[in-house]
This record gives sequence, C-alpha cells and structure tokens, in this order.
Amino acid sequence: MGGDSARGRPRDPRIDGLVLAATRDLLAQRGFAETTIQAVARQTGVGASTIYRRWPSRIELIESAVFPGLGVLDIAPTGDVRADLRRFVVAYRELFESPAARAGVPGLLAAYQAEPERHGTLVARVGQDVRPAFQATLAAAAPGTVDPAVDPDTVMDVLIGAAVYDAFIRPFTGRAAGAAADRAAQDDRVCDLLMRALRPDDGDRAPAG
Amino acid sequence: MGGDSARGRPRDPRIDGLVLAATRDLLAQRGFAETTIQAVARQTGVGASTIYRRWPSRIELIESAVFPGLGVLDIAPTGDVRADLRRFVVAYRELFESPAARAGVPGLLAAYQAEPERHGTLVARVGQDVRPAFQATLAAAAPGTVDPAVDPDTVMDVLIGAAVYDAFIRPFTGRAAGAAADRAAQDDRVCDLLMRALRPDDGDRAPAG
Repeated sequence: MGGDSARGRPRDPRIDGLVLAATRDLLAQRGFAETTIQAVARQTGVGASTIYRRWPSRIELIESAVFPGLGVLDIAPTGDVRADLRRFVVAYRELFESPAARAGVPGLLAAYQAEPERHGTLVARVGQDVRPAFQATLAAAAPGTVDPAVDPDTVMDVLIGAAVYDAFIRPFTGRAAGAAADRAAQDDRVCDLLMRALRPDDGDRAPAG
Repeated sequence: MGGDSARGRPRDPRIDGLVLAATRDLLAQRGFAETTIQAVARQTGVGASTIYRRWPSRIELIESAVFPGLGVLDIAPTGDVRADLRRFVVAYRELFESPAARAGVPGLLAAYQAEPERHGTLVARVGQDVRPAFQATLAAAAPGTVDPAVDPDTVMDVLIGAAVYDAFIRPFTGRAAGAAADRAAQDDRVCDLLMRALRPDDGDRAPAG
C-alpha cells in the first residue's frame, strides 16, 4: 500500500520536467508571488495533488526549478585549470542570471527569513553538492599551476559570490547593449583574479613553455 | 516660496535619523512587507507627509536605512594594505548581514524586478560611491606588495560578492554557536585570497623584512 502504486500509477519523470519548466516560465513572466502550485497546475494540466505529492510546497518547487542541482555543474576536469575554472564561473553566472533565478532568488531569500531552517536546500543545491567536482578540478591542474595551500572552498565561495553579485548587484544599465560581451569580459576578469590567487610563488612554479 | 521654508520650517536632521532607525527596527522585527511609510510614521510620531517629503516611497526609505552610504565605508588608507582590505571586507560583510539588510535586500531585489530603473540607487550606495576610496587603498600599498596590473574594480566586485554570499547563501547552520569566530575566519580567508591575487610575481616583489 506504500509508494506511488498506492496512488494508482508510477511517477512519470516527464511530468516532473513539465512542471519544473512551467514553474520557470511563471517565475520569469509573472514573478515569484504569482508562481503558486495552483498556477503551475493550471498551466500544465497536471493536478495540484500530483504536484504536492512531489513538492510539499511552492518553496520546494521553486527551489527545484531554479536550481536543478548538480547536473549542470558536474564538470569533469580537463587539466586546463583556467578553462575548467571558467566553466564553473560561467555556469554559476548563468544559473543566477536566468530569468527564473532573478525572479525566484529574492523571493526564496525572503521566505527563508521567516523559516531559516529551509535555507539548507538552497545551500546544498547552490554549492555543497558541487564542491567535490570543484576540488577535483583544482587537484587535476598541471603541477606548479595551483598552490595546494589555497583552500578550494574559499575559491568556490568567492566564485559563487561573484556570480550573485553579477546577477543582483551590478548595474542593470549597459546590460541591454553589448550585454553578452560585457558578461564574457566580467567572467574573464573573475577568472583572471582567481587564477592569480591560485598561482604558487615563482619559486614553486613550473617553468613556462 | 521654494524649498523647506515654503512648508513652514527647515528640515531637522534628527528627524531623518529617527526615521531611518525606526525603518531598520521595523525591517529587523517585522520584515520587508510590514515596513511601510505608515508604520514608520506610527512608530516615530513623525507625520507620513514629512517622511514622503524626504523619501518619495518606502523603497527609497528602505534603501537609505539599509545602505547609509559612503560614510561607514570611507576608510582612509594606512599603507598596511592587508589591514585596509580587511576593513572593507568586514564593513561589507557587516552591511549585508545586519538584520535590516537581511530583511531588506531580498525585498528590494524583488522590487527592482518590477522596476529595474530603481536599481541604480542600490548600486551607487553599495559600490560606486566607495570605489575611489578602495582604489586609493590599493594605490597606497607599499611598493612591491600590490601588482598595478590588477583591476581594483574587479577586486571590489569580488569582495562585495563574498559579503553577499556570506550573508545570503552560506549555511545558517553553525552561525549560532561560535558565530563571531566563524565570521572572522571567513573574513581572513577572503582577505588571504584577495592578497594572493594582488601580489606581484616574485621578480617584481619587494624583499621581505
């Protein structure tokens, strides 16, 4: 009598995808306040009770929709540490500047104010789950390019912070014209800064070429 | 007939301070939604029309209350660049983690979603006004400690991003017990990372001692 079979049929993963996509659309188009389970049910034709079975409240649904989890950020190291680092920088920046995140994150942060114990989900989805992949990236760097004394967690804190800053604090002005070039330039500036921080002292560095 | 005299008496700066303090208290105790001009008027005994004369809406009032502007961050360089940098790191972290900012920033970001042109005020108050002081700090560093090739604006973007991350993304768990020590340790980690990024290559560095 337990599990999905008790409710008639097994869960269909396509329904999850449909619900999450509709949630992102609603966030982007109508904002956090109007992104309710009922609105998602209306938009998708999926019953509200089916959605509640998977996500206990709209907060969890919005978290899942905005932060899809490790998948996008599961970046295998190539050994070219700057290129790998840049993929993390770009992935986080894109994560936070997506229309769904721009609408969803302020609302989630406001919700956590009232219920701080919920905050753990965001933290796990945004960072904790990704840290092993990030550590592996630094560990796979060519000898002499990354100082092992540098704490990978601090680098990742700063990297995520730069993405949050870029999405929520940097001026909106100038984003419309030449926005893509502007973002790429900022990604490069953040990468350059982090690579500078990671470099060993000259005496410990591999010779160039 | 223009200016404050047309309205009967000159503006009293003590009233501004009273209104801003009450706004911070309301944010911290009752949250963004309940921090209205009417509530501030009730709390302070200052007339709502007087408050509106100074701040056209509750958004501007909350911005002024949460981000009091350059004053707190107008840090004169001492020449000890790590100590100076740390004062910026601590000042921004304290700015964003204050109870008023924790309650106010998510609400402001949500408001900017609907009215992006308002966003400029936050940007100016959070960063633009402080950049000259920050640039002066790096410029005042002892020769050979800061590579002039490093862009001060990127360092400051990353520094502010780290503060935002620390206030809004890092786990709340662990903050209660030993929170002050934890915060100081994170401030040090961010400073260490930025100092590493700022250091010139060995060949250009001043000899130790």
